Amino acid sequence: MIAVDAQRLLGRIRELGAVGRDGEGRLVRLAASDADRLGRDLFVSWLRQAGLDVAVDRIGNIFGIWQSAGNAGEAPLLIGSHIDTVIDAGIYDGCYGVLAGLEAIETLKASGLSPSRPLAVAAFTNEEGVRFSPDMMGSLVHAGGVDVEAALAAVGTDGSTLGQELTRIGYAGERESGFLKPHLYIELHIEQGPVLDREGIPIGAVETLQGISWQRITLDGVANHAGTTPMSMRCDAGYAAARVITFLHDLAAAGSNAPTVATVGTMRLEPNAINVIPSRAVFTVDLRDPDEQRLQAQEAALAAFLEQLAAEGITVSVERLARFAPVVFDGRVVKLIEAAARKRGLASRRMTSGAGHDAQMIARMAPSAMIFVPSVGGISHSPHEHTGDAELVAGANILLDVVAELAVIKR
Amino acid sequence: MIAVDAQRLLGRIRELGAVGRDGEGRLVRLAASDADRLGRDLFVSWLRQAGLDVAVDRIGNIFGIWQSAGNAGEAPLLIGSHIDTVIDAGIYDGCYGVLAGLEAIETLKASGLSPSRPLAVAAFTNEEGVRFSPDMMGSLVHAGGVDVEAALAAVGTDGSTLGQELTRIGYAGERESGFLKPHLYIELHIEQGPVLDREGIPIGAVETLQGISWQRITLDGVANHAGTTPMSMRCDAGYAAARVITFLHDLAAAGSNAPTVATVGTMRLEPNAINVIPSRAVFTVDLRDPDEQRLQAQEAALAAFLEQLAAEGITVSVERLARFAPVVFDGRVVKLIEAAARKRGLASRRMTSGAGHDAQMIARMAPSAMIFVPSVGGISHSPHEHTGDAELVAGANILLDVVAELAVIKR
Repeated sequence: MIAVDAQRLLGRIRELGAVGRDGEGRLVRLAASDADRLGRDLFVSWLRQAGLDVAVDRIGNIFGIWQSAGNAGEAPLLIGSHIDTVIDAGIYDGCYGVLAGLEAIETLKASGLSPSRPLAVAAFTNEEGVRFSPDMMGSLVHAGGVDVEAALAAVGTDGSTLGQELTRIGYAGERESGFLKPHLYIELHIEQGPVLDREGIPIGAVETLQGISWQRITLDGVANHAGTTPMSMRCDAGYAAARVITFLHDLAAAGSNAPTVATVGTMRLEPNAINVIPSRAVFTVDLRDPDEQRLQAQEAALAAFLEQLAAEGITVSVERLARFAPVVFDGRVVKLIEAAARKRGLASRRMTSGAGHDAQMIARMAPSAMIFVPSVGGISHSPHEHTGDAELVAGANILLDVVAELAVIKR
Repeated sequence: MIAVDAQRLLGRIRELGAVGRDGEGRLVRLAASDADRLGRDLFVSWLRQAGLDVAVDRIGNIFGIWQSAGNAGEAPLLIGSHIDTVIDAGIYDGCYGVLAGLEAIETLKASGLSPSRPLAVAAFTNEEGVRFSPDMMGSLVHAGGVDVEAALAAVGTDGSTLGQELTRIGYAGERESGFLKPHLYIELHIEQGPVLDREGIPIGAVETLQGISWQRITLDGVANHAGTTPMSMRCDAGYAAARVITFLHDLAAAGSNAPTVATVGTMRLEPNAINVIPSRAVFTVDLRDPDEQRLQAQEAALAAFLEQLAAEGITVSVERLARFAPVVFDGRVVKLIEAAARKRGLASRRMTSGAGHDAQMIARMAPSAMIFVPSVGGISHSPHEHTGDAELVAGANILLDVVAELAVIKR
């Protein structure tokens, strides 16, 4: 059984994680920044070292491609993720998947195998979306979800323009967006949630990626004196908001093992004074479910509850902030992941991804799949983000096995 | 039956309400400001015009006293309220009670009656507490609740010192604080709540003034990704806060006709991001009840609920911001108010005051009572504050009748 070079993989994760530290030692490699350039340069040097063809497209996505005269006519098997980071990031988010993809290809190349189709690894631009909107931009552009010109015109939080910044750092490539049409896409990623760690399972076979429904809800009641207004004569927007929060919690928790999640993460009361009944509550609702029908049912239940509040005298207004349908990953690859784990004596579980990933964009153009490894404590987007070495290596070997399985069998 | 001079009373309310308008036309007579000086000067001119002795004490409380050689040895019957205002105030809050007190004394004086004890009307300094803390300061100092030197050293929101400001505007008086020991105190005030207006009752016989319990509660949970963290693995501080809000509402509303009120007026979530489970919720609880035992029971029930949250993994910390015991007004005067209303063919109801008033401070040194008239829509501390002319006059006549009843009968 072939295996990845654990030391090389772990060493590269650490080496890339040391690039782009700010004055306080924080890891900050925002898309198309100077720090991002340093990370890209290092990654490209490893691609060349591995003997891969390097291609950069107009939105700055980097591809390392291994093809031969014999398979150059076939659609490639693409492995990918991203190497841009959030502010004060951990070293695993995205980078692990990209470097494990390179590792898998390098290992197969060294093993003397002749794949039936090209193998490629991609680092997609601006997955995090911290500096430029939207997030998952590089993979979205690659899949044709947004025009490359529009994406290049994106203005960053610092007033810069993405296209100019890519040119400045030397990563405004010449390949047309979407030039590489994958036969299949696989992404290995840390879970960024607590499930695998809590359950002690090293491998997640990701079946679905949650649909997301984001709404901003404004409830208007009547401000009144907190002392002189009897409970029966109140129209308290804060109390109404609290009822929405408990309603949503009970709705999502009711499914016990259902992967529905509901979160009210932001809240603002007006006038926000200790002795005044709130006239207004503004809060956000983040609803997620891997099943579109169930997600729609949750949205409908919330709407019905809000109608009930309106009937009680609260003025309700709802603004839709975002809506993405769930993504269903390729069932055959899910089974291959499970089988690979079994062969290596590793426990696995099927699961849904609660976070967004480049895989959901590439799924628009090709069958796609994801493998998860545990995040200790479920922590991510933090310097405390951590996955043990053994689990990083195990995940990379599962990726290697699945790629080997897919790249020698003509579908 | 004698009656107040309706036109004189209404005219003075409007005239005083025109004094202290800012550039935008807003009524702003903050304590010891230039605008307050103008209001005080006008009030003192009316006291002199009515032939009353004017006395100003060290904290700037103004007294207009009618006494004769025959009753000068008796403790006076004191009527009072305040003429300072909030920012962008209505014209009735406080001023109505002071001017109706003057009107009652002036009417009795003109009627040829010889009261058994001196009659006095007071305008207490800084009832609103907008510029200087604490509120109800002048009556608190008068009742000996805080030392006059400490009160004069109060630093305002604008950095000024109350003592210097009173000297500057000419109202740092020479009389010692508390020099006038009332036999009994009566305060006529707009309700500042919706009860009388909603029920169509012109006269409130105020039996009690609510005790107040103010607490700031901080709940700490764990911040996690809103997508990747299953409902069962969450420790959501925002959801816990919502449960406290609904618990408090149900607790207060359960008493149906009980005057308990509970309000959560402020709320802050951290990190306050749409896709992050709140790690912290900070909110205030305003609990009020006219019955001390019931107020303590509500506090205990809240504490037990918070203990339950703590048992579920939420870290709870509670900070007490304020606590005032309920005030019980003089039962004999409550009955006199009801009798006076009956005689004039006016409906009345016993009630509690949900707002704080100078009467609660003077109740520390003498039997006290309050009369309420309706506030349209319960609105106060707003230019929309309104009470109809007929109701203003009716309230003043009830005050007149009660004072006449009390000042001719030796207790």
